[in-house]
Amino acid sequence: MIIGLPDVGLVGLIATAYLISELDLEEIAYMDSDLLPPVVVLHAGLPHAPLRMYGNKNLIAVISELAIPAPAIYTVTRELVDWAQAKNVKRILSIGGIPTENRQTIKEPEVFAAASNQELLDTLTKSGLKTLNEGYIVGAQALSMRYSISKKMQSIAILAQSFYNYPDPQAAAIALKELSKISDVKVDVSKLLEKGEEIRLKARDIMKRTQQEMKRMQKSQEYDLPLYV
Amino acid sequence: MIIGLPDVGLVGLIATAYLISELDLEEIAYMDSDLLPPVVVLHAGLPHAPLRMYGNKNLIAVISELAIPAPAIYTVTRELVDWAQAKNVKRILSIGGIPTENRQTIKEPEVFAAASNQELLDTLTKSGLKTLNEGYIVGAQALSMRYSISKKMQSIAILAQSFYNYPDPQAAAIALKELSKISDVKVDVSKLLEKGEEIRLKARDIMKRTQQEMKRMQKSQEYDLPLYV
Amino acid sequence: MIIGLPDVGLVGLIATAYLISELDLEEIAYMDSDLLPPVVVLHAGLPHAPLRMYGNKNLIAVISELAIPAPAIYTVTRELVDWAQAKNVKRILSIGGIPTENRQTIKEPEVFAAASNQELLDTLTKSGLKTLNEGYIVGAQALSMRYSISKKMQSIAILAQSFYNYPDPQAAAIALKELSKISDVKVDVSKLLEKGEEIRLKARDIMKRTQQEMKRMQKSQEYDLPLYV
Amino acid sequence: MIIGLPDVGLVGLIATAYLISELDLEEIAYMDSDLLPPVVVLHAGLPHAPLRMYGNKNLIAVISELAIPAPAIYTVTRELVDWAQAKNVKRILSIGGIPTENRQTIKEPEVFAAASNQELLDTLTKSGLKTLNEGYIVGAQALSMRYSISKKMQSIAILAQSFYNYPDPQAAAIALKELSKISDVKVDVSKLLEKGEEIRLKARDIMKRTQQEMKRMQKSQEYDLPLYV
Amino acid sequence: MIIGLPDVGLVGLIATAYLISELDLEEIAYMDSDLLPPVVVLHAGLPHAPLRMYGNKNLIAVISELAIPAPAIYTVTRELVDWAQAKNVKRILSIGGIPTENRQTIKEPEVFAAASNQELLDTLTKSGLKTLNEGYIVGAQALSMRYSISKKMQSIAILAQSFYNYPDPQAAAIALKELSKISDVKVDVSKLLEKGEEIRLKARDIMKRTQQEMKRMQKSQEYDLPLYV
Repeated sequence: MIIGLPDVGLVGLIATAYLISELDLEEIAYMDSDLLPPVVVLHAGLPHAPLRMYGNKNLIAVISELAIPAPAIYTVTRELVDWAQAKNVKRILSIGGIPTENRQTIKEPEVFAAASNQELLDTLTKSGLKTLNEGYIVGAQALSMRYSISKKMQSIAILAQSFYNYPDPQAAAIALKELSKISDVKVDVSKLLEKGEEIRLKARDIMKRTQQEMKRMQKSQEYDLPLYV
Repeated sequence: MIIGLPDVGLVGLIATAYLISELDLEEIAYMDSDLLPPVVVLHAGLPHAPLRMYGNKNLIAVISELAIPAPAIYTVTRELVDWAQAKNVKRILSIGGIPTENRQTIKEPEVFAAASNQELLDTLTKSGLKTLNEGYIVGAQALSMRYSISKKMQSIAILAQSFYNYPDPQAAAIALKELSKISDVKVDVSKLLEKGEEIRLKARDIMKRTQQEMKRMQKSQEYDLPLYV
Repeated sequence: MIIGLPDVGLVGLIATAYLISELDLEEIAYMDSDLLPPVVVLHAGLPHAPLRMYGNKNLIAVISELAIPAPAIYTVTRELVDWAQAKNVKRILSIGGIPTENRQTIKEPEVFAAASNQELLDTLTKSGLKTLNEGYIVGAQALSMRYSISKKMQSIAILAQSFYNYPDPQAAAIALKELSKISDVKVDVSKLLEKGEEIRLKARDIMKRTQQEMKRMQKSQEYDLPLYV
Repeated sequence: MIIGLPDVGLVGLIATAYLISELDLEEIAYMDSDLLPPVVVLHAGLPHAPLRMYGNKNLIAVISELAIPAPAIYTVTRELVDWAQAKNVKRILSIGGIPTENRQTIKEPEVFAAASNQELLDTLTKSGLKTLNEGYIVGAQALSMRYSISKKMQSIAILAQSFYNYPDPQAAAIALKELSKISDVKVDVSKLLEKGEEIRLKARDIMKRTQQEMKRMQKSQEYDLPLYV
Repeated sequence: MIIGLPDVGLVGLIATAYLISELDLEEIAYMDSDLLPPVVVLHAGLPHAPLRMYGNKNLIAVISELAIPAPAIYTVTRELVDWAQAKNVKRILSIGGIPTENRQTIKEPEVFAAASNQELLDTLTKSGLKTLNEGYIVGAQALSMRYSISKKMQSIAILAQSFYNYPDPQAAAIALKELSKISDVKVDVSKLLEKGEEIRLKARDIMKRTQQEMKRMQKSQEYDLPLYV
């Protein structure tokens, strides 16, 4: 299961939404809760829950077209992981951004990975992914890792260098490229790069709200390294 | 059942209140709750609950003369839909406004529809309504759609282009015109248009409070398009 | 039972406290709750609860020497009405103020009435009271009407034009005059008018706190008319 | 039982702490609660709860070296009174300050008393204490009176004119002098007066926090008289 | 068990983390709770809970790489002490900082101790530690003492003079030196002093957040002496 909830640079959301579109996954479930905003999203005149799951028989992908309110993050992520377990999901992979201060000067953002155990991490590095040696993961991505470990599920986090406050389709594209190295999920990201400007415009509002929720989680732009030596 | 709660431009409230008056519907029920403000409305010296239902044997109409507090929106809407189901209501139709930035330059606001399923949507478009292709519905209108779908009731949202912060009787009138295309509810809106200025004045206070609650729901004036591509 | 809780212009409190004093009613009960402020009022060195009931065998009068905190208003009013019912009270009459913008230019404030049903309202108008045709009642006065109706008790609201933020003994006096037309409660209000300045001074603090709570209930100075047409 | 919790001018706390020291009372109990701040007080390297009871076989004295948080005031006072009852305490006496605006111009602050019933009040006045005729008591002192009355215990409040925001050892000393008129608790207050400056310095921090909590209880510097006439 | 949670100058955290590293203690447990921030810490690409326990058969050490949110402090500390009891821990020792205003002018910070009872305190002073005669302990260090006393466990607090807002590795080093006098835990602190600048840089972010939580606990820079005389 791939999770792409609104977060730093909307990297996970943009990547996962593009994946759903390219792989033509079908909507298979949605989450309804008083913890989520009172909103319905319309596509072609028909209502959709903002947080919903798409899939085929090999893959489930989760997106939310609205920022998850900070106080709901524990419950929402726990429900997602529980639901995944009920669906016999073996591996949870989340895509996110690492806020990078001088992002505009970086031509090709780097992508890093973290994994729930050493064996899985070795598989990733053998496939050519870089490891995120020291750092924090915050929010739904952190909790999906925490909860999936407690459920004995494999968990992988893919993190691409990205803008903090601006939607970053290029980071999303590069994250998808790295994803293709470690899974069968292979999509041509050229369209994603072409539509960059359009996506940035459409995503302004969701980015603004996501930023508010990240602040409430004290997820700041400047990440220092963990203290432990 | 037609729902016209205070929202963008008070379109739904003005339209539904006018409908009640023109069709001479009787007060049949009201909602009492500690979640609603401690207020009684007087008409001809007699007290009324601000949120109440009117009807005849064919039609129920719901209005509230006070803004619904944002934290109460889930419970109030759920109770309304449950009550409708208990009354054997088959279809829930809510009227609302789409905040439109350059509203003052628009002579004839456009009206759009959304529906709980494709079949129902097709009926609407065949009757001449335009579909709201991409967008968000926020607040009681969104939740009434969410809850009525989960109860297997038909649900329609009628949305007229309108001012965000100013009561918009013209938008209400045009919404009623479109409503007449898809139902037996037909009223002459000429009086509504004539009394526009008077209604705007009377509605200032309720508009102000509605605006506060919309802010608490993060319902802003600038709606971007949903991100999903 | 007459209710005179702190509200617009303290009209109800001043009128009811004067009534208690003139009719020499005895303290018969008080309300204690963690919802009320941690305060004891001293009179002649002896402690009293701020919210208490006075009475003789014909009449009960309720006052509070402290503003009721906005979040407590539902529970406090409901308890009052329940208590009244347990005491076999048949009719609940509350006195309050209608904030009137140009109050200082009004020589003789007007008094209006509202009643729980048409029959009772007719009795009032036959006795010479004016009806409040269109308007809002907010706070304890609104809820005492709401709850007494649900208990099948008669309910009357007496509303005098008054200052919003300044204690208004004259409005209280005129409310008492009107009250005498519809009940056996007849008091000479001349002393109340004489002591006007003294009362205004003593009531400054309670007025200030009442104003804060009214704001929390969104009870503003400018009342528009209800929207429903 | 004598209660001296942090309040106006810290009069009660300073008086009671001095009493404990002079009478050489032993620590006999303490209160622990998540409602109280996460603090331990060190005396001679050993930890103490901030809110604790001292006593000998005739007398119990309660102090807190930290301001009681406003939301905890009901529970803390109720527990204190319940505990006193379990210990067969017959009389609860609290010492506090009356904020007096021109305190700095007063050479000898006045002390006033209030009592739970007329008989007890008469005893006090016969012993030479002045009665506080009209006024408010706010906070733990008010609640200890409220709760002890409901438990049929005698209750006395001793109130000395004092600074609102500055620790007032002189007011504490004069309160102790008056206390000696109505009880066997007699201490020489000369040391308290001598150490005035030192106490004021040491008490700055606790005064600052007490002031914050008094504000949250809306206990202001300007006390008007109660309204009731 | 040694507790080193983020607090004044991060003294306890830096000292305990260094201890874990030098003694090569193994991670043996962690705490997971919705009360803690939604964060995972990565070390060498593998996820760790921010609050975790290390140990060998003689010693347990607890650190948190994130500030404990103020409202969680009671529950988190209680759970820690309960867990320690279940593990048959006999003594709880916490390391912390005493904010010292002119810290930058102090060449060698002083270290003070407090203990749960006189006998234990005597042991410490015999080993050469100074006693903290008068003062407050605030936060997790205070509560760990409170709760361990109620569980009949020995409890020691080691407090080093330190900066309030700046990570203070020197204070941590000196605290460890004193610790070696009263236990078998002996580490060479020279590396800690050498890496001072590096640690200060890495710890900026956790210091900033710790400061926010200390403010919420009203743990201020200026500690006055306790009032009781």
